[in-house]
Amino acid sequence: MSDGQRPVRVEAVSTPGQPEVTDELKELYRGFEQELLIPLWTQIGGLMPAHPNSHAVPHLWRWQNLVPLAARAGDLIPVGRGGERRAIALANPSLGGRPYATPTLWAAIQYLMPGEDAPEHRHTQNAFRFVVEGEGVWTVVGGDPIPMGRGDFLPQAGWNWHAHHNATDKPMAWIDGLDIPFQYQVESQFFEFGRDVISDAERITPSRSRSERLWGHPGLRPLSVNSSGPGTPLLSYKWEFTDRALSDQLAMEREGYGGTVEPGHAAVRYTNPATGSDVLTTIRAEFHRVARGSETIPVRETGSSVYQVFDGSGVVTVGDVSWSVTRGDIFVVPSWQPFSAKSEAGSTDSDSGALDLFRFSDTPVFEALGLGRTRIDSQ
Amino acid sequence: MSDGQRPVRVEAVSTPGQPEVTDELKELYRGFEQELLIPLWTQIGGLMPAHPNSHAVPHLWRWQNLVPLAARAGDLIPVGRGGERRAIALANPSLGGRPYATPTLWAAIQYLMPGEDAPEHRHTQNAFRFVVEGEGVWTVVGGDPIPMGRGDFLPQAGWNWHAHHNATDKPMAWIDGLDIPFQYQVESQFFEFGRDVISDAERITPSRSRSERLWGHPGLRPLSVNSSGPGTPLLSYKWEFTDRALSDQLAMEREGYGGTVEPGHAAVRYTNPATGSDVLTTIRAEFHRVARGSETIPVRETGSSVYQVFDGSGVVTVGDVSWSVTRGDIFVVPSWQPFSAKSEAGSTDSDSGALDLFRFSDTPVFEALGLGRTRIDSQ
Amino acid sequence: MSDGQRPVRVEAVSTPGQPEVTDELKELYRGFEQELLIPLWTQIGGLMPAHPNSHAVPHLWRWQNLVPLAARAGDLIPVGRGGERRAIALANPSLGGRPYATPTLWAAIQYLMPGEDAPEHRHTQNAFRFVVEGEGVWTVVGGDPIPMGRGDFLPQAGWNWHAHHNATDKPMAWIDGLDIPFQYQVESQFFEFGRDVISDAERITPSRSRSERLWGHPGLRPLSVNSSGPGTPLLSYKWEFTDRALSDQLAMEREGYGGTVEPGHAAVRYTNPATGSDVLTTIRAEFHRVARGSETIPVRETGSSVYQVFDGSGVVTVGDVSWSVTRGDIFVVPSWQPFSAKSEAGSTDSDSGALDLFRFSDTPVFEALGLGRTRIDSQ
Amino acid sequence: MSDGQRPVRVEAVSTPGQPEVTDELKELYRGFEQELLIPLWTQIGGLMPAHPNSHAVPHLWRWQNLVPLAARAGDLIPVGRGGERRAIALANPSLGGRPYATPTLWAAIQYLMPGEDAPEHRHTQNAFRFVVEGEGVWTVVGGDPIPMGRGDFLPQAGWNWHAHHNATDKPMAWIDGLDIPFQYQVESQFFEFGRDVISDAERITPSRSRSERLWGHPGLRPLSVNSSGPGTPLLSYKWEFTDRALSDQLAMEREGYGGTVEPGHAAVRYTNPATGSDVLTTIRAEFHRVARGSETIPVRETGSSVYQVFDGSGVVTVGDVSWSVTRGDIFVVPSWQPFSAKSEAGSTDSDSGALDLFRFSDTPVFEALGLGRTRIDSQ
Repeated sequence: MSDGQRPVRVEAVSTPGQPEVTDELKELYRGFEQELLIPLWTQIGGLMPAHPNSHAVPHLWRWQNLVPLAARAGDLIPVGRGGERRAIALANPSLGGRPYATPTLWAAIQYLMPGEDAPEHRHTQNAFRFVVEGEGVWTVVGGDPIPMGRGDFLPQAGWNWHAHHNATDKPMAWIDGLDIPFQYQVESQFFEFGRDVISDAERITPSRSRSERLWGHPGLRPLSVNSSGPGTPLLSYKWEFTDRALSDQLAMEREGYGGTVEPGHAAVRYTNPATGSDVLTTIRAEFHRVARGSETIPVRETGSSVYQVFDGSGVVTVGDVSWSVTRGDIFVVPSWQPFSAKSEAGSTDSDSGALDLFRFSDTPVFEALGLGRTRIDSQ
Repeated sequence: MSDGQRPVRVEAVSTPGQPEVTDELKELYRGFEQELLIPLWTQIGGLMPAHPNSHAVPHLWRWQNLVPLAARAGDLIPVGRGGERRAIALANPSLGGRPYATPTLWAAIQYLMPGEDAPEHRHTQNAFRFVVEGEGVWTVVGGDPIPMGRGDFLPQAGWNWHAHHNATDKPMAWIDGLDIPFQYQVESQFFEFGRDVISDAERITPSRSRSERLWGHPGLRPLSVNSSGPGTPLLSYKWEFTDRALSDQLAMEREGYGGTVEPGHAAVRYTNPATGSDVLTTIRAEFHRVARGSETIPVRETGSSVYQVFDGSGVVTVGDVSWSVTRGDIFVVPSWQPFSAKSEAGSTDSDSGALDLFRFSDTPVFEALGLGRTRIDSQ
Repeated sequence: MSDGQRPVRVEAVSTPGQPEVTDELKELYRGFEQELLIPLWTQIGGLMPAHPNSHAVPHLWRWQNLVPLAARAGDLIPVGRGGERRAIALANPSLGGRPYATPTLWAAIQYLMPGEDAPEHRHTQNAFRFVVEGEGVWTVVGGDPIPMGRGDFLPQAGWNWHAHHNATDKPMAWIDGLDIPFQYQVESQFFEFGRDVISDAERITPSRSRSERLWGHPGLRPLSVNSSGPGTPLLSYKWEFTDRALSDQLAMEREGYGGTVEPGHAAVRYTNPATGSDVLTTIRAEFHRVARGSETIPVRETGSSVYQVFDGSGVVTVGDVSWSVTRGDIFVVPSWQPFSAKSEAGSTDSDSGALDLFRFSDTPVFEALGLGRTRIDSQ
Repeated sequence: MSDGQRPVRVEAVSTPGQPEVTDELKELYRGFEQELLIPLWTQIGGLMPAHPNSHAVPHLWRWQNLVPLAARAGDLIPVGRGGERRAIALANPSLGGRPYATPTLWAAIQYLMPGEDAPEHRHTQNAFRFVVEGEGVWTVVGGDPIPMGRGDFLPQAGWNWHAHHNATDKPMAWIDGLDIPFQYQVESQFFEFGRDVISDAERITPSRSRSERLWGHPGLRPLSVNSSGPGTPLLSYKWEFTDRALSDQLAMEREGYGGTVEPGHAAVRYTNPATGSDVLTTIRAEFHRVARGSETIPVRETGSSVYQVFDGSGVVTVGDVSWSVTRGDIFVVPSWQPFSAKSEAGSTDSDSGALDLFRFSDTPVFEALGLGRTRIDSQ
């Protein structure tokens, strides 16, 4: 993973916008190299482009290809201290062979076999799980076991102790999202091992976590919690609520009251109920539903996103690339590339046949630092 | 500057904490490579270290070596559209030959010949100038000419039009600090060319900029400005005020009233007068004065800093490295490396003989995202 | 309501801490009166007491006495433009005959007859409704009809158009809370009449308002709403959620996981889901459940509260006064008077027999201005 | 100061918008009185007006009348524990004989004789001093002696210990501004006596306070102070800076660069350098300079203001009233009354002959609670 000790090289080239190549210039450039200096004028085009020109490319991973490989890892790779998790990261093909979905985001499929535990640890990296299929695993955060089921979103802010246990006789797969590349780059990461084995009291399997019992009531906060940290205290956003919120928006639209982002496009953002802001300081998470027969307008944003198809099928377009997608497929939208999604043709009075998309992005970083921009390309 | 198209490689190695290397494992790993997948268990040590383990190394650039090279560039390299600035960046020796002082910060020496202009442009990168010696250049920000003199600090938030003009018959050098590596990494950058030639009205040489006349009065804000953006509206922090603030702190300490960070160590932070927060959303700037005969306690922080010695001499220690430093010398403190500074021996009732250090860092990024940590190592 | 044109009077009195009464003093004081001046030294004790010494007194209104009077008003008083609402305010007996429950808060019982409408208007005063019994009225806020049923809390920030319609064949009573005394005092009030008759489209009777369909899903915000004002966009907090949140806290306590404010005392605050802060900028609203056999510790706070007993019975103590209370009873806790509540004796594994208290207060004013203080008296 | 124990009276009157007066109505109203109830429909016009209709009236106090009375008080009234301060409050003639300049603000002239001390105390009321003439008194806040001279503004947030000492052989007068009426109304006040006699170390007479040495440098904050409370840590805003800021604005306007609020009208707000916001959480303070021959546009605002003429002369208009004013005169602008100021006729290239106005208001209360409104009446 090292950036290596490559020497400083300053090339004298003869191109427009560059000084003429002379012996004196070459000598000057040798002096720069010796003193570890690099002139702006040889670098400015790449370093300071007119607009974001991402190193990442749009790419699609098919769920049907990921799951068998994860299952095979279930057979061959133990889960335990050191390796920590049976998580397999999506590596964007143009990010130098690194395990990065985008320059700032990590996305992985995690797999836990029947009866297995993943050992406790904590790290400053912000994380979440999202479940596209299956059930049976509980994530234990700070001693609180949280069930994982299809459609559930489980954020977990940095520096919380956490482990997993599979309480059933079936394996389970889900996706993890983290800000590993971002924290790797700014060099903010801390990591600690916790207990190798969690207690029996934590291996229970309640249908609602304690965090949901305290924080999962709309518009209500418990007085027993004086304050909370930078991340959300609500550790599970159950599918039943997300689904209903999206259905409500589409129903309101049909009744003539608006409620959607654009015709046929319902969307919610997962938020910290203590502040109303993003669930994690570095990661935004949203759910989008494109009704049957609808298409979203192409939008560019600074920052990158990863999407997973939760249900339905359709066509998504990222920059110049389009893919037909179906349940579980995961794809990347690099910074400033236009994105749009189109569900299957047809029309319906209900939400059936909609294209359901889970999305996460690094937008909170951009907004916190005044770097967010959005552009809707006129058609 | 590309991260390249290196293929995904997953190596099966036989080391503790890794699964046994078998043919099945190798086949699994070939499957990972084919699907652009990388397992966490082969990467976790480097990706998620116990604490920040910077790719950057401590390094020192001597001012006496930089200036002649910059002057020689003055002879050989024209300033104009395309190259934009005669700025020469400090390249940390372990960051892969890139023009980065640290993983997030750019530091450069800029040089302008008598009568020269640097053309107008704007970019989302946040920037500042700091002047260790000389005078005669005005930076024109949004049409407001700002004089640059020894000790002056000139911040300039992203997306403001700016140009420079040297109004004297002497060349002038100063340092530029920007968040180029950070914005390059998160891919947030926009850039636009402005006018090639600034107007005569902007080539005037007032002793105070209009921004100072509006915002440079302690504790007072003009009612004519309804609001201001994310960066500071005060475009020059003149040396006379910085110097006096530091002298006041040391004098208060001598009188028994505190006021310093620790004995003999005075320090101020440059702030946005409209908000009291950092001058730029991604860059913090401070000035530290270590009184003759004093030494600061070693402190570690997440995030990286660049220091320039403004005056005096002494010894600075970054991690395991110590250097004797003097006026103009520039050095880097990588993330989580302990830093301390020691001025020359002696004692005095005045500030004479103090070691004066200008510092800039990426701390606002960490604080905005809940990633800031500081540790004072017990001695 | 006028503060009157009473002349300025400065009395020369012969008491400790006052200058000796002489003819010269009397002459000086006549001079003060003539110039409309009043010395601090004759006023300081009352104006600047050692701690809040409220002009309001603790007082209890019995629901069983309020309802018949409201019903009689239903017979005799029409609802219409000019009078605007059939609302009858609780007048604290020591606030000079003014319709103020406390120096800052208005509390009233409102009554609407079968088929009646209350006409549309808007005002800067922040308001809410709380329903202790009955159903059948819809409050129409900005065209969105919101059902009102037992236990529902309906906040409504200032300057929103609103009306009521009773869609049933029964009268209905509920309480209104507003910041009328506060805004009267600081003189911030605006008021406008709306349409005399609301449209048929607004006289519909949905079981959920559109605000609930957009904002009533735990931890989820709609992307279709770019921003929201200072008050909550969620216009109804339904009883089912409040009740469940309180039950969850008491159940968690019984399981040994905490979750309550103190043993047997569950409590939630109604919050703005867009910000996590109070539903209204000047009014806080909470619900407290004291389990059978439990008693809360006496707490003093700056600012005043009004409570309504929602269910159960018990004894409440405000300063030196205690009352046995039951469903619907309303009482006042003046600033800095200690308050505690005790439910009926007994014990239970469920929430049955709990004392349920709805509370509203002016606390957000104190917190916004740095004036909040709380003291728990040791016992 | 009591609001009295006047009984609740509900009058049945025969006017438009009121129900017909019948025996049944009278009986109902007797029932209301007995239960301490007051109907909205008899009160709404006064309680909820179409716009703020202040109980205060515009009023002017002449400095030439105030000073002799204050001086006479200097002869007759001792300063000491109990009375605390020789402060004489301006009583708005329509606020019921109370010592209130406006419904929320206290304004007083304070007078200290040669060699006198005013004893130490603290209170939650936010306070400031402003000096229209004289010098020689130091205000000691938290042990830090702060000189008071013509044009200086000295804010002091609630709950700081403070005392005064006159170190010269001349008496001195200045004005005090506090939020006494506001805190009296919301009942948030605490008060404590401090030492009766301050120490010799505090009776020193430095030309700059320690607060100025730490915080009085434009755009610079000391690193030695980790955080600060809700009020400003800068305890003196010296005239030299205020004057220069105003001159700079008028000069920029003359040069064609704007900088003023409107032609000929320069203005600054005193701000907390740690946050950029108002110096006190409940009081805003500003300084306005109206150049010779200029006139400000009439502006209405929610909330009330008190002005003191610092220099020059001119005509001010509050609602329907106009006064010719000169140095030291103090006047009140009630909520939502339009205000404008006109300096003496003439024209000049300098600031000489300008009308200089110090202003304080309760605006931060309104802004914090979302109640601020401003209207510029078209002419």
